[in-house]
Amino acid sequence: MIPEKSPEFRFIDRVRRLAGQAPGVSLGIGDDAAAVTFESGRPAVVTSDMLLEGVHFQIPPATPHDVGRKSINVNLSDLAAMAALPRFAVVSVCLPRGRSIGDELMDGIIESASEFDVTIIGGDTNAWDGPLIVSVTAIGEAHAKGLVTRSGAKTGDWICVTGEFGGSLAGRHLSFTPRVREATFLHEAAALTAMLDVSDGLVADLFHILEESQCGAVLDAEAIPISEAARSLASDRTPLQRALGDGEDFELLFTLPADEGQRLLARSDLPVRVTRIGEIVAEAGCRLREEGSMTELPRLGWSHQIEPGR
Amino acid sequence: MIPEKSPEFRFIDRVRRLAGQAPGVSLGIGDDAAAVTFESGRPAVVTSDMLLEGVHFQIPPATPHDVGRKSINVNLSDLAAMAALPRFAVVSVCLPRGRSIGDELMDGIIESASEFDVTIIGGDTNAWDGPLIVSVTAIGEAHAKGLVTRSGAKTGDWICVTGEFGGSLAGRHLSFTPRVREATFLHEAAALTAMLDVSDGLVADLFHILEESQCGAVLDAEAIPISEAARSLASDRTPLQRALGDGEDFELLFTLPADEGQRLLARSDLPVRVTRIGEIVAEAGCRLREEGSMTELPRLGWSHQIEPGR
Repeated sequence: MIPEKSPEFRFIDRVRRLAGQAPGVSLGIGDDAAAVTFESGRPAVVTSDMLLEGVHFQIPPATPHDVGRKSINVNLSDLAAMAALPRFAVVSVCLPRGRSIGDELMDGIIESASEFDVTIIGGDTNAWDGPLIVSVTAIGEAHAKGLVTRSGAKTGDWICVTGEFGGSLAGRHLSFTPRVREATFLHEAAALTAMLDVSDGLVADLFHILEESQCGAVLDAEAIPISEAARSLASDRTPLQRALGDGEDFELLFTLPADEGQRLLARSDLPVRVTRIGEIVAEAGCRLREEGSMTELPRLGWSHQIEPGR
Repeated sequence: MIPEKSPEFRFIDRVRRLAGQAPGVSLGIGDDAAAVTFESGRPAVVTSDMLLEGVHFQIPPATPHDVGRKSINVNLSDLAAMAALPRFAVVSVCLPRGRSIGDELMDGIIESASEFDVTIIGGDTNAWDGPLIVSVTAIGEAHAKGLVTRSGAKTGDWICVTGEFGGSLAGRHLSFTPRVREATFLHEAAALTAMLDVSDGLVADLFHILEESQCGAVLDAEAIPISEAARSLASDRTPLQRALGDGEDFELLFTLPADEGQRLLARSDLPVRVTRIGEIVAEAGCRLREEGSMTELPRLGWSHQIEPGR
């Protein structure tokens, strides 16, 4: 007699069946560890993000399916920030007992992974009486042209962004598409000097580039692309303040030499809106140029506090 | 003016400083993702485990340092189960607000990682009002001789284990040393057909080999190495039952052809106690041979329930 499998093992079996085998996977789900190969010999690019119910999302308004998608997409957004190609993901979850959300969560995870040809190669499943936790590690492969780090910005470089900013809590923080393909396009189209994805907030994340590159920035207030959500949400902050500080936009923020920037913005085949929002300067810090005046910007951004309705 | 860094970034800075750079790390902590290379061209071996306060440990009796060590060691135990060489780890944590345990936790993480030349290449840091959560993904490199999976056991193979079993809750579940070096020794010394590390319980985990290898097992009751803790702990179960079912022993359970087993056990240079506890048979299921009688064993083992004092 072979004893009944526990719910945990049924869950793992389901992921195993859905995920299947894929190129580069020498050993998939079902052993103590998975094994993968990088045929190209290029570096493996690794990133990890943990999402916590009550901190990064609430169910409702988010559905377990939304959370599953987001748990993969935030990691793919980090790989996009390096212009890397997503390949594999490891998914560890802690499911709340008595709430049947595991299947829907996993559907969202598989859906987002499939959209970017990412294979789920393993993970860990737990259950408790607490909230839902999803911790994903994504593994990609460096682009043949190399990685785009945060540390290469130079004085005189343009600062550019994809898409629009602010008010992502109205829905975009759950429904965004990670800029994986856009990042590859940009990396192939121009000599990017630094790049990241905006999760903490446009200014907060720009500071990461400024510190790693040991430089400063001047942003043009009227150039910041402000989302419709940031304009229409009731708030004690202006739409511009929201765009600069809200976070979870998951757009790309990148720098490149001015001549490269001019050439890039002149292209008619850009897969996404690209906007020049300022330039890199030698003096440390970040200043906002607005109607002729300059304002020193603090490190704005959402910093891991629980926000109701998030 | 460069604004003050938040506690989260100070924590990341500390890991970055402690972890440093290491061979194979093209890009370490401090960017959107890390980048690593596998110079050997051998497969990357990936595993992940999430530890939850109240489920996998309690503070006290465990210290944050214990938890840090355990969070790395459970993953290294999984890599050992594949006879892989540990290389890198990604550590995501959620720290409970108002409890100063982050530094001590990180000391434990760094200590265990250092013992096995594992470099912390990244992670994610969060804070909330809930319990401590640590989710680690470890990445190793396959042994030149290949991986040892769960699926190669054959009828007639010996079933062997390292160390002793049972009663690990008395302390060993926190203080164990992952069998990384022992696994390499065994893989190089003999033609192992299947291997795993015992976390759920000796019988529960043996079932994984039996299912993946499509075979059964007969265990010899008097051969099971029972730990002193299993013998001395007050319990409504016998020491043998504890050894078969307790779990979290983090010893290796492996199979190999009988002649290979004989040769292995005859060696005088074994780095750890190795015991033959039974054999693989064609008939499915797992039976215990005890004083001439045979008992069918259920899938025993600890199955993710909260146990006070754990």
